[in-house]
Amino acid sequence: MVIAIMGSGGDAPGMNPAIKRFVEYLSERGGTPYFIYDGLEGLIDGKIGRADYGDVAGIIHRGGAIIGSSRSPRFFEAPWREVAFKRLQEAGIEGIVVLGGDGSFRAMELFHREFGVPFVGIPTTIDNDIYGTQYCLGVDTALNAIRDAVDRIRDTASTLKRAFVVETMGRECGYLAAMTALTCGAEVCLIPEVDFNEKVATAILREELERGRRYILAIVAEGTKRTLGVARWLEEDLGMETRVTILGHIQRGGNPTVRDRLMGASFVVHGIDHLLQGGEREIVIYDGGKLGLLPVEEVTSQSYRLDPEIVKLLNFLD
Amino acid sequence: MVIAIMGSGGDAPGMNPAIKRFVEYLSERGGTPYFIYDGLEGLIDGKIGRADYGDVAGIIHRGGAIIGSSRSPRFFEAPWREVAFKRLQEAGIEGIVVLGGDGSFRAMELFHREFGVPFVGIPTTIDNDIYGTQYCLGVDTALNAIRDAVDRIRDTASTLKRAFVVETMGRECGYLAAMTALTCGAEVCLIPEVDFNEKVATAILREELERGRRYILAIVAEGTKRTLGVARWLEEDLGMETRVTILGHIQRGGNPTVRDRLMGASFVVHGIDHLLQGGEREIVIYDGGKLGLLPVEEVTSQSYRLDPEIVKLLNFLD
Amino acid sequence: MVIAIMGSGGDAPGMNPAIKRFVEYLSERGGTPYFIYDGLEGLIDGKIGRADYGDVAGIIHRGGAIIGSSRSPRFFEAPWREVAFKRLQEAGIEGIVVLGGDGSFRAMELFHREFGVPFVGIPTTIDNDIYGTQYCLGVDTALNAIRDAVDRIRDTASTLKRAFVVETMGRECGYLAAMTALTCGAEVCLIPEVDFNEKVATAILREELERGRRYILAIVAEGTKRTLGVARWLEEDLGMETRVTILGHIQRGGNPTVRDRLMGASFVVHGIDHLLQGGEREIVIYDGGKLGLLPVEEVTSQSYRLDPEIVKLLNFLD
Amino acid sequence: MVIAIMGSGGDAPGMNPAIKRFVEYLSERGGTPYFIYDGLEGLIDGKIGRADYGDVAGIIHRGGAIIGSSRSPRFFEAPWREVAFKRLQEAGIEGIVVLGGDGSFRAMELFHREFGVPFVGIPTTIDNDIYGTQYCLGVDTALNAIRDAVDRIRDTASTLKRAFVVETMGRECGYLAAMTALTCGAEVCLIPEVDFNEKVATAILREELERGRRYILAIVAEGTKRTLGVARWLEEDLGMETRVTILGHIQRGGNPTVRDRLMGASFVVHGIDHLLQGGEREIVIYDGGKLGLLPVEEVTSQSYRLDPEIVKLLNFLD
Repeated sequence: MVIAIMGSGGDAPGMNPAIKRFVEYLSERGGTPYFIYDGLEGLIDGKIGRADYGDVAGIIHRGGAIIGSSRSPRFFEAPWREVAFKRLQEAGIEGIVVLGGDGSFRAMELFHREFGVPFVGIPTTIDNDIYGTQYCLGVDTALNAIRDAVDRIRDTASTLKRAFVVETMGRECGYLAAMTALTCGAEVCLIPEVDFNEKVATAILREELERGRRYILAIVAEGTKRTLGVARWLEEDLGMETRVTILGHIQRGGNPTVRDRLMGASFVVHGIDHLLQGGEREIVIYDGGKLGLLPVEEVTSQSYRLDPEIVKLLNFLD
Repeated sequence: MVIAIMGSGGDAPGMNPAIKRFVEYLSERGGTPYFIYDGLEGLIDGKIGRADYGDVAGIIHRGGAIIGSSRSPRFFEAPWREVAFKRLQEAGIEGIVVLGGDGSFRAMELFHREFGVPFVGIPTTIDNDIYGTQYCLGVDTALNAIRDAVDRIRDTASTLKRAFVVETMGRECGYLAAMTALTCGAEVCLIPEVDFNEKVATAILREELERGRRYILAIVAEGTKRTLGVARWLEEDLGMETRVTILGHIQRGGNPTVRDRLMGASFVVHGIDHLLQGGEREIVIYDGGKLGLLPVEEVTSQSYRLDPEIVKLLNFLD
Repeated sequence: MVIAIMGSGGDAPGMNPAIKRFVEYLSERGGTPYFIYDGLEGLIDGKIGRADYGDVAGIIHRGGAIIGSSRSPRFFEAPWREVAFKRLQEAGIEGIVVLGGDGSFRAMELFHREFGVPFVGIPTTIDNDIYGTQYCLGVDTALNAIRDAVDRIRDTASTLKRAFVVETMGRECGYLAAMTALTCGAEVCLIPEVDFNEKVATAILREELERGRRYILAIVAEGTKRTLGVARWLEEDLGMETRVTILGHIQRGGNPTVRDRLMGASFVVHGIDHLLQGGEREIVIYDGGKLGLLPVEEVTSQSYRLDPEIVKLLNFLD
Repeated sequence: MVIAIMGSGGDAPGMNPAIKRFVEYLSERGGTPYFIYDGLEGLIDGKIGRADYGDVAGIIHRGGAIIGSSRSPRFFEAPWREVAFKRLQEAGIEGIVVLGGDGSFRAMELFHREFGVPFVGIPTTIDNDIYGTQYCLGVDTALNAIRDAVDRIRDTASTLKRAFVVETMGRECGYLAAMTALTCGAEVCLIPEVDFNEKVATAILREELERGRRYILAIVAEGTKRTLGVARWLEEDLGMETRVTILGHIQRGGNPTVRDRLMGASFVVHGIDHLLQGGEREIVIYDGGKLGLLPVEEVTSQSYRLDPEIVKLLNFLD
């Protein structure tokens, strides 16, 4: 079977280990691996090529994706999808492994409905905001990149008696911020999923400052849009000199952790097995410590909900 | 309830986040936290102290354990256990959380049988060789430390056309070596649990070298005792200039990863809850993506077996 | 001789190795080491204590400063300086080693003029903006922290065909931005000391993009106040989707590099030797590969100028 | 002018930034850059190719050297040197930049004497053992890799009350070990250049252990050949459970630090300028904070001597 792999949407660490295992495992299983470069944009433009072992040597420790990725507004116009389908036919591609988020899965779902192209989706986003899976590729590397940044900031915070506000990525999802707060020793955490009671927090922190607390570390999810508001609150209500750091794309890059290398490889093996057995339009998920599959429409029609256990744990913070 | 926490046996990254959460969570639940310093040796010597928030500020990112640890041959002599019990009574300690491996759990099992001291064990060892749990505290940090070392070695290997043999820890268990081989792109992996066919490997590698392979990376678990034998094989049979690195205790130290910080905290919360509900002698385990409990005798009477899935994956090597 | 060490102004990595060596070396030389906690603010409040070996064990790899630091507006009011002087007399302190920047040196110069307290200054700031010295403590660690961030961003930039703007610290000095641009492969660099010709840069980059360039990385010194302007230029004139990262205090923290550990220790040894030989009010400097001394008034009365060699090298960019 | 760059001997971090700058700067100056792959071995085999910008994109943060390196016993036989010379003539190469150590410089000196091929040498070795230069490319990255390993080991050492012996590279030169001992807080340091008084050290350490010291860290240069002897001494005379780590090639690899990126680029620019001005057989050196040049015979006829300042500083240890 001729199968292509493609990145789509934002990139995440772990894509390269997934791409490497894709070429190796599909070859072992007797299939023929192809790359589609630069995502759906590249597909429309016919950037498709045969892949072999040489292409994936020495890439396991690199961030990003050697095959590129993209967001493609063109793909949501019917004539371009027709072009894309022709490209696949010309190259003889019989199935696609898509590394992407739910926007990409929706695009592939539409494409499958119209042209019947079989695909499997690998949930790939540091935001960890895809329905049905407890893990998305890239999350562990992102969390450790944030940890590294927060550990550095704490050094200077404790020296200078200051407050620091660190904004994490995650779009509408508070997962990265919540996990960071739980594991990096924050005093304050704001995420879109949980109400933040400024009054209670002010009272608690004021008391701690009186008892000798030297610094305050606040982790704020970008989805709350309250990064600057929190800084103002810490300055004005708590009288702390306050600094803001917006981590931005530092969170997306870097050498994938062991967990992301392993998850990338495991997701891809599961996906290839499924396509070889006649899979049509499924997403590989991770749940209860095991890999599984869900139909794409189930994944794209529902929204991710933050694990209530995590929400509960956050209560110990202010 | 007055509960003490103690390290026992070899240390592992993640102990400090566990200790921090222990003090915080037990205080929140209305209990009284104590430290036993330097493990069972320290217990015999009465190194016991009341713990509070101040003791655990700023420790979350440090390797090792601020309360120390030890191996205690004395504890396996009955009179010293009697001394240890008296120390606990004097301090009013009603339960113990033990961060350790199966040797430590066996010691505590004996102690419980004799004196009825309630305890919970937190599986803590980078070797990941404890029966009944898929995860032991410290493993993720150790794997990422090894990854970092192997990534560095690969740089120089590919520049100089050489073979490198890297010995990983793990005692009788091949987990660290196997996971490293799977995620860091090794050509050869030797673990105690799997036979290694030198003849087949020689044939495959010779062919690859002829086709242009520039380096060979072999990961060898210390439990095989074949590190130097593999080096000789690569030099003599394959004609590669070969270098050996013995990672040693680099694997044990370092800032705990997000996963180990989270697992440390989660294990401890589960353990405290269990003691508060009348737990007597259980080990907290992680299985199927969830925490659970097993009686200590079940854990100590059986040996860890490497996941057959991992063994299967290793076949693509060699 | 009784000598105290003190941090003043912003912190920088390398302060802890300097503090450690201060205690060790002064003791070896027969002197008596003291700490002044929390800078000039702490001095006014009498936070002064005897220091010994135990205080500096295990601190060499920590960012920040275990003795704290501060900016002290109070110290610029004469009555508070009188209080500060009394504190020193009470504690019997005969000389001070100050880890700080030129604001702190100016404060100490004034203090010396009024009360004759001998001091040596150790240039300590990641901004590298002190006159007379080619190196300030903390710069190497800051540069490597920025390198790490930029390496991560480049991964994602090359995957997604985007432009990235990274703002570095440095107040009015472009050193950090210039060195980063030179060593991390930036296409664009803006610093306060050099005019940036947008037109020329637009022409060059447009041509490169047409020839296949996948991403643009711009390093902007905070002192230019043009971070957002550069982002707008890349979006509008060059048509690149652009993201901004403001590194903030990530640049200040973290485990000091070998160079900063060595420079911290060397600066302090030179400074103590000078005080023991009757030094009055000098700054330790690093020039031409060697340590030396300059009178404080020479250092504070002139502004740092960026090495013209660096400025010349930057011409190849843009 | 047509100039080729070549690695020779062991690799070191910083070679890739040097190679990148070589291509860029020589092109800017109007020259024509070539690569000789795999060192003198590759030269004999005619592995020579034209280099351009595309070859050096995205390599600045990779360890090793994209052009490979080698040790070449063949090159010390006259007929092979003749072959090598013919290869250069065929490719039209008029000068060579050699990244190597003194063995490589000696080979080039011989080659120059016989065939008059102009070259400049860039001192490249983590051992820092080349006469006439205070800095060799790769040293800073190696030192920071060792620091990282030692910081990890200290975590576990202080938890378990143990002694650790860490062997560093450096052949006959103790530089790496000495600098590590000075900056990473070792108690014991053995280098080939300094006698080690076991009796004095035993007395001092015994006293410290009695006063409560929890661990001993010994840094041993491989050139002393006393790694295991030191371990035995710590076990038997001081009664400490002791572990040995042999860092090996971990020290050679990894993302080059800012200093090595800058030194790599600066060395190469200086070397190219010299060749373009008619240089014949010089080595670029770094001394007193500045780059300079020495005739190759001066460099190869004398041995490196460790800075007496460093030797003096080591006295506080032991």
